[in-house]
Amino acid sequence: MSFEYLIDPAKGPQWTGRLPGAPKPYVLRRGEGETAMLFGDLFTVLLSGDETENQFGIITADSPAGDVIPTHSHNETHETFYVIEGKVRLFFEDEEGQKQSSLLAPGDFGFVPAGFAHAYQIVEDARMMGTLSGGFERFFQHMGTPTDHATTDQPPFIPDFPRMQAAAQQHNMQFLPDYTWPNA
Amino acid sequence: MSFEYLIDPAKGPQWTGRLPGAPKPYVLRRGEGETAMLFGDLFTVLLSGDETENQFGIITADSPAGDVIPTHSHNETHETFYVIEGKVRLFFEDEEGQKQSSLLAPGDFGFVPAGFAHAYQIVEDARMMGTLSGGFERFFQHMGTPTDHATTDQPPFIPDFPRMQAAAQQHNMQFLPDYTWPNA
Repeated sequence: MSFEYLIDPAKGPQWTGRLPGAPKPYVLRRGEGETAMLFGDLFTVLLSGDETENQFGIITADSPAGDVIPTHSHNETHETFYVIEGKVRLFFEDEEGQKQSSLLAPGDFGFVPAGFAHAYQIVEDARMMGTLSGGFERFFQHMGTPTDHATTDQPPFIPDFPRMQAAAQQHNMQFLPDYTWPNA
Repeated sequence: MSFEYLIDPAKGPQWTGRLPGAPKPYVLRRGEGETAMLFGDLFTVLLSGDETENQFGIITADSPAGDVIPTHSHNETHETFYVIEGKVRLFFEDEEGQKQSSLLAPGDFGFVPAGFAHAYQIVEDARMMGTLSGGFERFFQHMGTPTDHATTDQPPFIPDFPRMQAAAQQHNMQFLPDYTWPNA
């Protein structure tokens, strides 16, 4: 269901051009934006660095409960985790290098700046909002695949390892497969 | 109720230092952060430019239904409006200079970049999240007043005109008292 736009790939997904691509005012309804599937999660870009002089971008993630996502760190990207619905356990390395974890409920907020290892686990089906240093917001559609369906009720998209590595390299981050977390 | 900390003002409000002031990881529970009252609204800074190399800051606003807030524009600040609860009518000048308005419900999103006149009205008691160009997030505590109570159930803080003007000047914005909106 994610792939109808491939019938005429020159057009790209129907959401192409939904964001203005420049600092102009606009409004999106819930579900509108640049939607992409990555594993079983729906990522929606509401705002990109193109609209903010590359200061920041904003995404939402609609995610079913599941395993801990792969631990990673960003070289230059600051990242926030605001839980709107559901429960999410955030794992992060703190400034002393200690491994921390925190169960975030609706209204709770986490911040992980550039350079700190982190991961998360959706404990109960969740909707999160993230603000990211400008440009990183499109990582999810590059590692995942565009979809015109703003729902998680569609087939998952499982990237192969080269695709994962290419998206990580493009967005200046690295996976840390040997990193483990207490309580994970 | 907003002013207990004035008994020992050298200490500032109890939330002083709650944000790390540098790019370090942290978590806030709902209601935690730098809380301030401005009129009848509770503004909470969850993240400031100090943590993001001045890229962006994040606030929440808990606001009772009321009148249209004063129209204004920012010279250099990009600003988002994401409705978590309630209903908010956003008024904004679009790229053609036309006056637009849009009623935002939970999950809806608005973006107003630097240089565009805008205002909003809380139509039903609302909770909003805003991401702002780094530094502007503390405008609300400068025009308003710090409080240690994370609730709107406390006396409003009504700034006098010199305080409003000082905060606007400090944060590089201007009020546009002659600007009117259709449907307002």
